[in-house]
Amino acid sequence: MDFSHSPKVAALRERLLAFVDEHIAPNDHLHHEQQAAMTDRWQPVPITEALKPKAREAGLWNLFLPESGHGAGLTNLEYAPLAEIMGRYPWSSEVFNCSAPDTGNMETLERYATEEHKERWLKPLLAGEIRSCFAMTEPDVASSDATNIQTRIVRDGDHYVINGRKWWSSGAGDPRCAIFIVMGKTDPEAEKHKQQSMILVPRDTPGVTIKRMLPVFGFDDAPHGHAEILFENVRVPAGNILLGEGRGFEIAQGRLGPGRIHHCMRAIGLAERALEMMCRRSLERRPFGKPLADQGVIIDRIAQSRILIDQCRLLTLHAAWRMDTVGNKVARTEIAEIKVAAPDMACQVIDWAIQAHGAAGVTEDFGLAYMYKIARTLRIVDGPDEVHKFQLGRMELNKYRAPRNARPGESV
Amino acid sequence: MDFSHSPKVAALRERLLAFVDEHIAPNDHLHHEQQAAMTDRWQPVPITEALKPKAREAGLWNLFLPESGHGAGLTNLEYAPLAEIMGRYPWSSEVFNCSAPDTGNMETLERYATEEHKERWLKPLLAGEIRSCFAMTEPDVASSDATNIQTRIVRDGDHYVINGRKWWSSGAGDPRCAIFIVMGKTDPEAEKHKQQSMILVPRDTPGVTIKRMLPVFGFDDAPHGHAEILFENVRVPAGNILLGEGRGFEIAQGRLGPGRIHHCMRAIGLAERALEMMCRRSLERRPFGKPLADQGVIIDRIAQSRILIDQCRLLTLHAAWRMDTVGNKVARTEIAEIKVAAPDMACQVIDWAIQAHGAAGVTEDFGLAYMYKIARTLRIVDGPDEVHKFQLGRMELNKYRAPRNARPGESV
Amino acid sequence: MDFSHSPKVAALRERLLAFVDEHIAPNDHLHHEQQAAMTDRWQPVPITEALKPKAREAGLWNLFLPESGHGAGLTNLEYAPLAEIMGRYPWSSEVFNCSAPDTGNMETLERYATEEHKERWLKPLLAGEIRSCFAMTEPDVASSDATNIQTRIVRDGDHYVINGRKWWSSGAGDPRCAIFIVMGKTDPEAEKHKQQSMILVPRDTPGVTIKRMLPVFGFDDAPHGHAEILFENVRVPAGNILLGEGRGFEIAQGRLGPGRIHHCMRAIGLAERALEMMCRRSLERRPFGKPLADQGVIIDRIAQSRILIDQCRLLTLHAAWRMDTVGNKVARTEIAEIKVAAPDMACQVIDWAIQAHGAAGVTEDFGLAYMYKIARTLRIVDGPDEVHKFQLGRMELNKYRAPRNARPGESV
Amino acid sequence: MDFSHSPKVAALRERLLAFVDEHIAPNDHLHHEQQAAMTDRWQPVPITEALKPKAREAGLWNLFLPESGHGAGLTNLEYAPLAEIMGRYPWSSEVFNCSAPDTGNMETLERYATEEHKERWLKPLLAGEIRSCFAMTEPDVASSDATNIQTRIVRDGDHYVINGRKWWSSGAGDPRCAIFIVMGKTDPEAEKHKQQSMILVPRDTPGVTIKRMLPVFGFDDAPHGHAEILFENVRVPAGNILLGEGRGFEIAQGRLGPGRIHHCMRAIGLAERALEMMCRRSLERRPFGKPLADQGVIIDRIAQSRILIDQCRLLTLHAAWRMDTVGNKVARTEIAEIKVAAPDMACQVIDWAIQAHGAAGVTEDFGLAYMYKIARTLRIVDGPDEVHKFQLGRMELNKYRAPRNARPGESV
Repeated sequence: MDFSHSPKVAALRERLLAFVDEHIAPNDHLHHEQQAAMTDRWQPVPITEALKPKAREAGLWNLFLPESGHGAGLTNLEYAPLAEIMGRYPWSSEVFNCSAPDTGNMETLERYATEEHKERWLKPLLAGEIRSCFAMTEPDVASSDATNIQTRIVRDGDHYVINGRKWWSSGAGDPRCAIFIVMGKTDPEAEKHKQQSMILVPRDTPGVTIKRMLPVFGFDDAPHGHAEILFENVRVPAGNILLGEGRGFEIAQGRLGPGRIHHCMRAIGLAERALEMMCRRSLERRPFGKPLADQGVIIDRIAQSRILIDQCRLLTLHAAWRMDTVGNKVARTEIAEIKVAAPDMACQVIDWAIQAHGAAGVTEDFGLAYMYKIARTLRIVDGPDEVHKFQLGRMELNKYRAPRNARPGESV
Repeated sequence: MDFSHSPKVAALRERLLAFVDEHIAPNDHLHHEQQAAMTDRWQPVPITEALKPKAREAGLWNLFLPESGHGAGLTNLEYAPLAEIMGRYPWSSEVFNCSAPDTGNMETLERYATEEHKERWLKPLLAGEIRSCFAMTEPDVASSDATNIQTRIVRDGDHYVINGRKWWSSGAGDPRCAIFIVMGKTDPEAEKHKQQSMILVPRDTPGVTIKRMLPVFGFDDAPHGHAEILFENVRVPAGNILLGEGRGFEIAQGRLGPGRIHHCMRAIGLAERALEMMCRRSLERRPFGKPLADQGVIIDRIAQSRILIDQCRLLTLHAAWRMDTVGNKVARTEIAEIKVAAPDMACQVIDWAIQAHGAAGVTEDFGLAYMYKIARTLRIVDGPDEVHKFQLGRMELNKYRAPRNARPGESV
Repeated sequence: MDFSHSPKVAALRERLLAFVDEHIAPNDHLHHEQQAAMTDRWQPVPITEALKPKAREAGLWNLFLPESGHGAGLTNLEYAPLAEIMGRYPWSSEVFNCSAPDTGNMETLERYATEEHKERWLKPLLAGEIRSCFAMTEPDVASSDATNIQTRIVRDGDHYVINGRKWWSSGAGDPRCAIFIVMGKTDPEAEKHKQQSMILVPRDTPGVTIKRMLPVFGFDDAPHGHAEILFENVRVPAGNILLGEGRGFEIAQGRLGPGRIHHCMRAIGLAERALEMMCRRSLERRPFGKPLADQGVIIDRIAQSRILIDQCRLLTLHAAWRMDTVGNKVARTEIAEIKVAAPDMACQVIDWAIQAHGAAGVTEDFGLAYMYKIARTLRIVDGPDEVHKFQLGRMELNKYRAPRNARPGESV
Repeated sequence: MDFSHSPKVAALRERLLAFVDEHIAPNDHLHHEQQAAMTDRWQPVPITEALKPKAREAGLWNLFLPESGHGAGLTNLEYAPLAEIMGRYPWSSEVFNCSAPDTGNMETLERYATEEHKERWLKPLLAGEIRSCFAMTEPDVASSDATNIQTRIVRDGDHYVINGRKWWSSGAGDPRCAIFIVMGKTDPEAEKHKQQSMILVPRDTPGVTIKRMLPVFGFDDAPHGHAEILFENVRVPAGNILLGEGRGFEIAQGRLGPGRIHHCMRAIGLAERALEMMCRRSLERRPFGKPLADQGVIIDRIAQSRILIDQCRLLTLHAAWRMDTVGNKVARTEIAEIKVAAPDMACQVIDWAIQAHGAAGVTEDFGLAYMYKIARTLRIVDGPDEVHKFQLGRMELNKYRAPRNARPGESV
């Protein structure tokens, strides 16, 4: 369990930090302004696009993909500190072609798609030429339980016909979004976790209608966005099914682990930036004749933030190490732990940073309200806290149900 | 300390509840849609306007104004349960001409303006024909300490000339907003709390520029809005000063008490509605085969919400009763208590309600993210929690500094 | 809902406060010393005994008993502020013959015992000549659910024969404890809430064995104490049953409401004293060159304590008022609210006071650790928080199960 | 930063776990009974003494001492998982001669004492033949700020004369306690951190009076105990001073780091055992017809406990690794972090475990109240949380005071 950076990772970190210092941090305000000013909300933000070739040139491209020649060949543990850095500026992940849901979709295609589909969808995704979307959550059912999903995928000759309604289909707002991975049921009578399948649906397939883009805490997250999508008699070739009928749940499981750990690492970076902002603001602002930085309550929160962040980072690195060494399935306990811990921590730290900024904290001048929106939403995305804690609690209890009783939790 | 409803209040409550049932609740979604659909963001929302005459006709108009023939003649304690009901649907306060900052501005004009100014500004405000704005907070200083304010109000012959920059000037977005009450310094050399004055500035006075409307958690709060305003050599007649030079702090103190208690009562109503939504959703939603309402964590939060709300309501009624009986100045302890307690409570209850709604909780389909924005912002508006707690803590400590030592806190 | 003090209560409060100032506060340390020094732990503490005649003489005796000529004839709402004052010094309740479980036992006897039993047990209890015990909780089952109780009470001719094991039988340590009220099952086959009965068992009845006195957080609570008691073929006359077979649950319900509200009022008094101690200590103690009272974190906690206490007191007065006006059964929601809120609040305030006292906070020099023990134990006594919150949450949810849907919670 | 167990540590852990399984866990109840039954409170507990030779024989003796031939030669990181295991049963540390304050005292002697003193005091301490005490805290001043210390150590010819009052001198109750390390001021006029010295005082030196043993949450912690000690004209040879006059603060700093990390590791073990007990109890106990383990609130707390413990363990291992690699002084940030985090975490987990045990949780049948006492006291011992957080917050703020501004916190 060695969390030190290998020389390879250390070099990538240095390069990434330098890139952030040179290109991301100084353009953060510009990015915000460009995005805010766009009247056609769903067009790419110029500064993001302008930086992509630079990132690629700097060798900071597709860093996320483990066990593949297409990415940087990093393990989860190696990728973690890089994702943390990207997380400080939420828009920056895309600059490095490391943004959700494209990362998860690329990984899914890399693992489960045919060569033909890889050529058609994975290649341009890796090149950053198209974007993609993952359509799983449904408005009408509690989708944290995937067995509730109602979208139907019905075989009809050489095709599958898809009917259903999805929402929170992130990334669908982008005009370059060309491919959807859709989860639905092929056999509602099958065993509980064999009913679901995943299928590739090109965006321009007839019957696909984007009903609306969802606001989140008042933000539209343009040009990425979160869509509500109607699938009406959408017909795609049978070969578009991934891995085969009834394998959807299995693919989802494989996909969710990395997705969650990426979210958590980015949330840690986000919290670090909020803490930095809290410190800087506290040193500058002087209500009642002395800087906030001299007030006990503020100092206490800064200290507590440092503790919360450091604890959470180590827990996340630990989960990454477990994923790398025992596999995503066995490491589901550790993944559940960070999925609960990181967003909660980030919400707390950002909330304190907001408070230290007063009225400026809830408007967009510092971006803290937007950062809070990200962290708060993470407590729901990929399953709400309650579901993960329920599973985690049950796994802990199970240790003591066994005939041969366990010892209390042991040191790592 | 009798918190029961007098027959007069009981009758008003019944009428108000009936109006909400008939006109507000069923139009909540329509209001949201109309507002969301407006391309010119700063026009009145039709349903709000359509309901105003009905409210007036129902005798539900200007209920807030204490000790005045213009309002309903209610004490703070009497108005509290009515404000709570309005708070359930944040947009409804305006329907009853009871929305901030107009209420505070009307009260200020009623108490301190000349007859001429009352005729010109108070009368149309009471009639709901114009809107108003209170310009106090400044972006460049920690305005929670009013002595930091930098806007200058300089006498020049028969006029005052105003220079400064304000923000969070709520209500300035509304095209009907006709009058600003501006706080600034007339004498920066005077005693600390005699430097400030308040002055009336008609919106169309040359030199008044609305620089931008501030987003709050991504929301623009249109058509009301929160403005950043530049005052450049703005010249108004000397008679526009309220009460006289150096009286600004005094007016602010008188104004803030009622403003805070109104906010708190509305926050309680907001929390009640969030709790209702949490209950209804929990009864309907069935992840993992049984309703959320059967899950212990949810039940526990619902119980805790009931406790938190009930405690907070009683504390607020108590503060109202104190304001009515000992005056706003002596009751500043009690006002500080609720200013901290109510927004914090509302944030917690709404956050739990969001969680119970899953992905739907952070989008606008249920309005919960918007409700959270209101409650969260209240922790900063009119002074952040930390300032109120600092004062409250000092007042508590002072009890034991006196030569003759106090007893521990006594029952009310 | 008038929480003001009637002239009668105001006069009692003045008298009680004067008595506390003169006799209780100055003897607090002496009481602690005398109790600590007793080698025979189970003898009355001299100062307690010395003050009883003074309290009786001052008309401060048996203040608790509502609707009875034996007490002061106070409603719950009237008794509440008096109980709060007694709660500041936990040992003082007994000085006024107002300590648990005697209060509950006296009320039970007053309501449900025969004249003969009143003469034999109630009279000397009212006179403070004997003490009593309530034996309900059992070590082997989760007694928060009274239907779990296993003690058997079996009719045998003119007698009942009792077998079972009880613990947490508070007050049994006192050598003057003469009478137990025992809860057990007379008919395990009856309807769920008709199985239980209560019966009077004189302490010296053969077969009653005190197995041990339980320590609580290391304290023995001598001379009162909490006993584990074995009942082996304990035979008492059939007339000792209270109200009749199968009425035990009903008696318990009637008894628990007042017991809980007394606990809560005392917990509020305890928290007030902890807050006073925190303030005084903070003014005196100067680590790092300035008094704790100038440190932001301490001031913040003092403010928060004031808010928490005031909220909780109002909630408790509200519950008392409900008990007085709608009866204990209907007011069970309000009783559940305070049963959760008051101990939790007291734990928090006392914990902060401990922290402000440093090492002195956890030893007995200031009594804070003992105060914490009281408050912490109250989160379990008479049903753990979780049970009350479960019931409270269900009651809230039930409002929305009805065919005619409720409005959100309304102002009191 | 490799937290894996080296083969040496892995072997020690296996041996230690086996010893705990065979000798400690099965005797936990016996230990409690023996201790509770001792009328002479200050005699060694037989089972503890009986196990010491076995531990020594098993090679589980003096495991704590880093960089020394006397101990097991373990780094802090290597010792951490062993301390965690000992922490599960608080009395077990002494069985392995690894209990505070003897560990810290042995380390201090090893580093700073003369050969003569090592022979006289360190040797029998290492052999477990005598016990020792560290006298630093004073009742009259806030000792978390060591500059407040008032005890005087005055040179008088070949001797030093000590006058002062100490308390919380842990271990002084043990009749085998033979040597005190006393902190006092040799030069109150010197530079702030050069005023203090440490000096060896044999317990039987004239003028040393143990005034009383302090109860902690009602517990006496016999036979170890926490003493209040009066030093009146206590005269010891000048050579008894450690390292030289004015070096006391420096020694304290060196000593406190390891002391704190040992406390934290043991607190983690304690929390693990509390979690185990919470799980086992929840599986057994069935209020209201189903096991606690099926109730959502309990499951949620178990999950949260798992997260809290795992986070905190990793943070502690990280601090140990920093101490080993950059030294205790540079690692003071990390030590401050765990000093705050671990006791707070343990308090929370144990509190939940208490609640799951109901009435049994606050008595001594399960030892949970005693475990809580340990964890709660740790929030004060070696400096209260507030002091550590103040320093931690300042260090974080300092990053941004520098002319060359820092980046936000970086991944480890």
